[in-house]
Amino acid sequence: MSEQYEVHPHTKVVRGHNRASYDPGQIHGIIDDALICHVGTVIDGRPVMIPTAHWRVGERIYIHGASKNRILAAIADGAEACLCITLLDGLVMARSAFHHSANYRSVIIYGKGTLVADDAGKMEHSRLFTEKLEPGRWEQIRHPNKQELKATMFLGFDLNEVSAKVRSGDPVDDEEDYDLDVWAGVLPCATVWGAPIDDTRLKPGIVR
Amino acid sequence: MSEQYEVHPHTKVVRGHNRASYDPGQIHGIIDDALICHVGTVIDGRPVMIPTAHWRVGERIYIHGASKNRILAAIADGAEACLCITLLDGLVMARSAFHHSANYRSVIIYGKGTLVADDAGKMEHSRLFTEKLEPGRWEQIRHPNKQELKATMFLGFDLNEVSAKVRSGDPVDDEEDYDLDVWAGVLPCATVWGAPIDDTRLKPGIVR
Repeated sequence: MSEQYEVHPHTKVVRGHNRASYDPGQIHGIIDDALICHVGTVIDGRPVMIPTAHWRVGERIYIHGASKNRILAAIADGAEACLCITLLDGLVMARSAFHHSANYRSVIIYGKGTLVADDAGKMEHSRLFTEKLEPGRWEQIRHPNKQELKATMFLGFDLNEVSAKVRSGDPVDDEEDYDLDVWAGVLPCATVWGAPIDDTRLKPGIVR
Repeated sequence: MSEQYEVHPHTKVVRGHNRASYDPGQIHGIIDDALICHVGTVIDGRPVMIPTAHWRVGERIYIHGASKNRILAAIADGAEACLCITLLDGLVMARSAFHHSANYRSVIIYGKGTLVADDAGKMEHSRLFTEKLEPGRWEQIRHPNKQELKATMFLGFDLNEVSAKVRSGDPVDDEEDYDLDVWAGVLPCATVWGAPIDDTRLKPGIVR
C-alpha cells in the first residue's frame, strides 16, 4: 500500500501540522515498534482508558484482554474507541523554556472495534501476539484451551481514521536566542532490553 | 501523606485487583518516573486522546500545551479527563500463551482539570516542567515572555480519583505447566538515556 491514508475530520492534525504523517509505511513502523498502546473510550459519558499490548495484521491493529474487562466490553458493544501509540525518542533541550520539546513518534487511531468471535480466529491472534513478543515462541508454549479462549476477548480496529505525528532532530529556537550561552541539543532515549531473567521455578536443564 | 487514596467507583480496580495500589508514595513514584502520560477526554461524544509531558506538585499532576489545542481547551472548559501513565518494565514469558503478560507500573487519574490562569503561575509551572526535564535547566535558559505564556495552557488535576496497577516478578503458570520443557521468565526492559547530541547550531565554545 503506497497511497496515503485519507485525512478525516478527526485525524487532521491541527497543532504542529508540519509534524503530521498519513504515510502507511511510517505508521505501520511506529505501530510495530511499540509494544503497548493506550485505548480510550466513553462509558456513561466519561472518558476511560487502559494501557494494553497490541499487534498489527496488514491494515488492522489488534488488542486483547479479559472478556469481562468493562472497557473492552464497551468497545465490543459498539462504543467508539481511540488508540494512541507513543514512542519517546528524546528530550529536546532548547535555549528558551518555550521551545523545549520532545522527539517522538506517535500514532492515533479512531474507530469502532470488531470482535474476533470464533475460536479459530482467537487461536490465530494468540499466535500473532506471542510471536510479536518473541518470534518462534508459539512453537514452544502450550496453546490456549477452550476455557482460556472464552476468557479472552480480541478486538481489531481498521487503520482508516489514522494519523501519525513525528518530531525528530534539533531544537528550533527563536533566531535571537541562538546567541545565548546555553547548551542546546537532544537527550536521546530508547527502550533497551536487559539480560533475560530465569523464572525462579524454571525446570532444571532448561536454558534460554 | 501516609493514608491510602480513597477508592472511587471509577478507580476500583476490578480485573487483576491483586495488582491494584492506592498508595500515595507508590503512585507519586510512578508519576515522577514517567515523562509522558496519555490524556483522554470526550468531545462531541467521542473519545479523544493526546500524549503529553507531565509533572507533579504534591497532590496534583500538571500538563501543558498550546492554548488552542482542542483537547486541552475542552478540558479547560470543564470536560472530564482521564490521565494514564504507563511504565513497561518487561515481558513476562510464561509456559502457556494465556499467561504471557507484562511487568509494568501504571497510574490512572480521573477528574476535571483546573486552569492555571495567571502569568505568575504559568511562569512557575514553566520552571517546574523544565526542571523535571533536567534539574538546573531553568537557571540557564531564556524564560517565557508574555506572548509565550499566552500561547501556553497549563492544567492541573487533583490526585483524588487515582489508582495504580503494578505487576512485577515471575510468570504465574498453571501448576501442571511447570513441567513443560520451555524457558520461562522475564525479558526486562527500561528507558535508557544515550549520549547528549549537540544542536548542529550550538554556539562555539559551549559544552555540556
